Amino acid sequence: MSYFALAIGTASRNKEGKIIEAWYPEPLLNPSDDLMTGIDEVIKLKGGNEVFVLEKSQMNPLAGHLAAAGHKLSAEFCRAAESSHQTLLMVALESDSAPSSVAEGFLKLHLISHRRVKPHGCSLDGLFGLLHNIAWTNEGPIDLPELAERQIEARLSGRTLSVDCVDKFPKMADYVVPSGVRLADTARVRLGAHIGEGTTVMHEGFVNFNAGTDAVSMVEGRISAGVMVGDGSDVGGGSSIMGTLSGGGKVVVSLGKNCLLGANSGVGIPLGDNCTVEAGLYITAGTKVTLLDDNKQAVKTVKARDLAGQAGLLFWRNAETGRVECLTNKAAVELNRELHSNN
Amino acid sequence: MSYFALAIGTASRNKEGKIIEAWYPEPLLNPSDDLMTGIDEVIKLKGGNEVFVLEKSQMNPLAGHLAAAGHKLSAEFCRAAESSHQTLLMVALESDSAPSSVAEGFLKLHLISHRRVKPHGCSLDGLFGLLHNIAWTNEGPIDLPELAERQIEARLSGRTLSVDCVDKFPKMADYVVPSGVRLADTARVRLGAHIGEGTTVMHEGFVNFNAGTDAVSMVEGRISAGVMVGDGSDVGGGSSIMGTLSGGGKVVVSLGKNCLLGANSGVGIPLGDNCTVEAGLYITAGTKVTLLDDNKQAVKTVKARDLAGQAGLLFWRNAETGRVECLTNKAAVELNRELHSNN
Amino acid sequence: MSYFALAIGTASRNKEGKIIEAWYPEPLLNPSDDLMTGIDEVIKLKGGNEVFVLEKSQMNPLAGHLAAAGHKLSAEFCRAAESSHQTLLMVALESDSAPSSVAEGFLKLHLISHRRVKPHGCSLDGLFGLLHNIAWTNEGPIDLPELAERQIEARLSGRTLSVDCVDKFPKMADYVVPSGVRLADTARVRLGAHIGEGTTVMHEGFVNFNAGTDAVSMVEGRISAGVMVGDGSDVGGGSSIMGTLSGGGKVVVSLGKNCLLGANSGVGIPLGDNCTVEAGLYITAGTKVTLLDDNKQAVKTVKARDLAGQAGLLFWRNAETGRVECLTNKAAVELNRELHSNN
Repeated sequence: MSYFALAIGTASRNKEGKIIEAWYPEPLLNPSDDLMTGIDEVIKLKGGNEVFVLEKSQMNPLAGHLAAAGHKLSAEFCRAAESSHQTLLMVALESDSAPSSVAEGFLKLHLISHRRVKPHGCSLDGLFGLLHNIAWTNEGPIDLPELAERQIEARLSGRTLSVDCVDKFPKMADYVVPSGVRLADTARVRLGAHIGEGTTVMHEGFVNFNAGTDAVSMVEGRISAGVMVGDGSDVGGGSSIMGTLSGGGKVVVSLGKNCLLGANSGVGIPLGDNCTVEAGLYITAGTKVTLLDDNKQAVKTVKARDLAGQAGLLFWRNAETGRVECLTNKAAVELNRELHSNN
Repeated sequence: MSYFALAIGTASRNKEGKIIEAWYPEPLLNPSDDLMTGIDEVIKLKGGNEVFVLEKSQMNPLAGHLAAAGHKLSAEFCRAAESSHQTLLMVALESDSAPSSVAEGFLKLHLISHRRVKPHGCSLDGLFGLLHNIAWTNEGPIDLPELAERQIEARLSGRTLSVDCVDKFPKMADYVVPSGVRLADTARVRLGAHIGEGTTVMHEGFVNFNAGTDAVSMVEGRISAGVMVGDGSDVGGGSSIMGTLSGGGKVVVSLGKNCLLGANSGVGIPLGDNCTVEAGLYITAGTKVTLLDDNKQAVKTVKARDLAGQAGLLFWRNAETGRVECLTNKAAVELNRELHSNN
Repeated sequence: MSYFALAIGTASRNKEGKIIEAWYPEPLLNPSDDLMTGIDEVIKLKGGNEVFVLEKSQMNPLAGHLAAAGHKLSAEFCRAAESSHQTLLMVALESDSAPSSVAEGFLKLHLISHRRVKPHGCSLDGLFGLLHNIAWTNEGPIDLPELAERQIEARLSGRTLSVDCVDKFPKMADYVVPSGVRLADTARVRLGAHIGEGTTVMHEGFVNFNAGTDAVSMVEGRISAGVMVGDGSDVGGGSSIMGTLSGGGKVVVSLGKNCLLGANSGVGIPLGDNCTVEAGLYITAGTKVTLLDDNKQAVKTVKARDLAGQAGLLFWRNAETGRVECLTNKAAVELNRELHSNN
């Protein structure tokens, strides 16, 4: 019984009974055959990708199988769920096909944020259309058509209904806080973000879904959907990383290792390792960049897209001529080192 | 009985009994004569602009008149309010004069956010002075002089009093969520913002009061007080729109239709339709801009303020010379199209 | 009995009983000898820097001494605390040495945010290592190792556990709201920030700990850790102030009085009084700046670090040549005045 993913959790429903969001304490990637066989004894699996609403009586047997497979948190959840009045559900995905329900979509987003898969590592096709636009409030997620009535009820009862987000994606931290991270303002990190161990997302940082950092990064700028940032790279305050090659193409932008985007800078091309963009400079794919040799003499001028993915580049705008220049090789590495030291 | 606006809702008071904020589920612009006559039967209207604190016994009769006039949500509110212990109030404005109370001021802000009037479409004169600086908390709005005591009480009771905003304006979404919008981080949209049908305000977007979008826009930058953005225009990540002509004048800045402000760009002049500002470029009113013809040859240099409101402009900084240039007419439109396609 | 600081408040503990945060309604700098003598009658002080967990029976006597010394809020707190089930604590610091406990660290941060000391005015050495990385939630601070379990419990009980911040520093406004400020989005101001009387921090503003404003400022950009901004200076939308001299050195960056950082601009050098940086321009320490005389003729070119701390400078990038220029003296002051008038 080879499965792609398995998760047990709770869900919220709208007034029509439709599941509008789901939370899984411990989503599992490639659950073991033994576990799936055990689960099949409790809940008959038909195969394929399935979502089950669970009965309380099933929770204890499930807990036993999960504990036996070493999944402590899921087991703990199942045991505690025996006395819950919430909707309990299980999602079993035999394959990583496009999600076909809200519960599946949320599982995919959980898998990324739990670092079980990397961004682009599972299919999110059609996800946007599946998800409801929800009012995420201090009283839980509310399907938008029901919000007006809920506000009336709250206000007339003297309660404060705080609507913190109106979106298809909730903030990640309400669902997942992976190990070894700081997230100074969690409203800036969407569920489905991949925040690497050792990453700090400061107040001005932002990470979209299906995007994030590999490992240790200081994120004070914006990581658009789809973008990955390599270990040791810092995204400076207010800096911007476009999602795809700006001005054409479907190339997804990424940063290699040990890059530095200066404050208020930006890139519309992928960068290789050890690249630096000066504070305040925006490099789009169409920016004409003059390459300098080690003596800082101009060699030639190219469009930035031609430099996509190259390592060891340092981009700046010459403050005397206004020309966008790129220093390569040794000189760049040395300057990189100097700049990093004061990050 | 011709009236400018009518609204029924609830309010919060400070310890001295003064109304410090008010919420209306369905503010009405130009309520019908029939409705006002009906209301006059329940609550004797003297004419002019009036604020009434309502008795519970008045709510059911009011509900009847509101239902008869087709205002379902207000009627529903009135019926539910019969058993409420909150302050209930009605604001009837015969004319759109400067607001003279907190309840009126909040009504004006509601009218804009409910899209009953456009920004600049009603008088907000003196509003700033009327509004209290309030601590908006998870336990509701607290007048600032009372905050310290409330914190003591909360902390000693083991409760968490989260102070989310200390400002005269609350976040819009706690009062109004208009149809067809997404607001990724509602803390960035003030009550009194006009968010057009089809607009998404992303996490880095910001919309001040008396400002906003006409229809479909992707807002990832900052729309200052007073600014309106036309249908189809996108405000790129971290971009900035100044409130009035920078460096002089009272001209309010606006964007026409189908404009694109690139990421981290900015404007201090109004733009006509189909304009684009390159990522990272800030155009203030005083910026000297070199106009190019269709062959990209320099024609003349003007201050950006002289281009205010013109359509079909594309602004960029020449990456080889550092010169701020403006491409007009055909070439710009083509480039606009290309840039938009990757938005 | 000469003491540096004294504070009485409440604290949260993790499951192991360790104090992970503390709140003091009214931290006192240099408490009077009389007060300390009175307190010594209730709680035997050994001298040095001490943290005491208080008994309820001690609260009323403490209230008496605090009231006698004129500290109304602390007295009120102590009286109310008699019936509390929360952890009550007192911190008495004989000297301003490096904090050695969470309770002391939080006191130092309180002292700054209450404007009892200026940033850099007390020792925060080793603070970062002392503080726990905490999930700040609507159910209070939760030590990270306990979060997963709390989420399970909340979700299965139908409660919404909103995790708003995962960080060592909480948002200031939950602990301190000093007089005469507006904080449009409190998530952007860390405990330990010094927000001067008359300062407004708008939604895009940010103030780190041990940093802030002296008096009246409009903050719509980012004030990094350690940075101070002088009276009358405005930090424009999305602008960036680096924490230390960029590209080398330990010089802490600051702004003098009546400066203006334009929108999306930035500085990596300290500025003296009456300086202006044009919207969109980033000045790092290494930026080559061409100085102009009063006739706007180039005089010489220097690195920006050589201009650190000088007054009356206006920085811009020449839009015709791309050159970064600096206007000094009279011309700058006049231009400053013009620019400020439309702020």
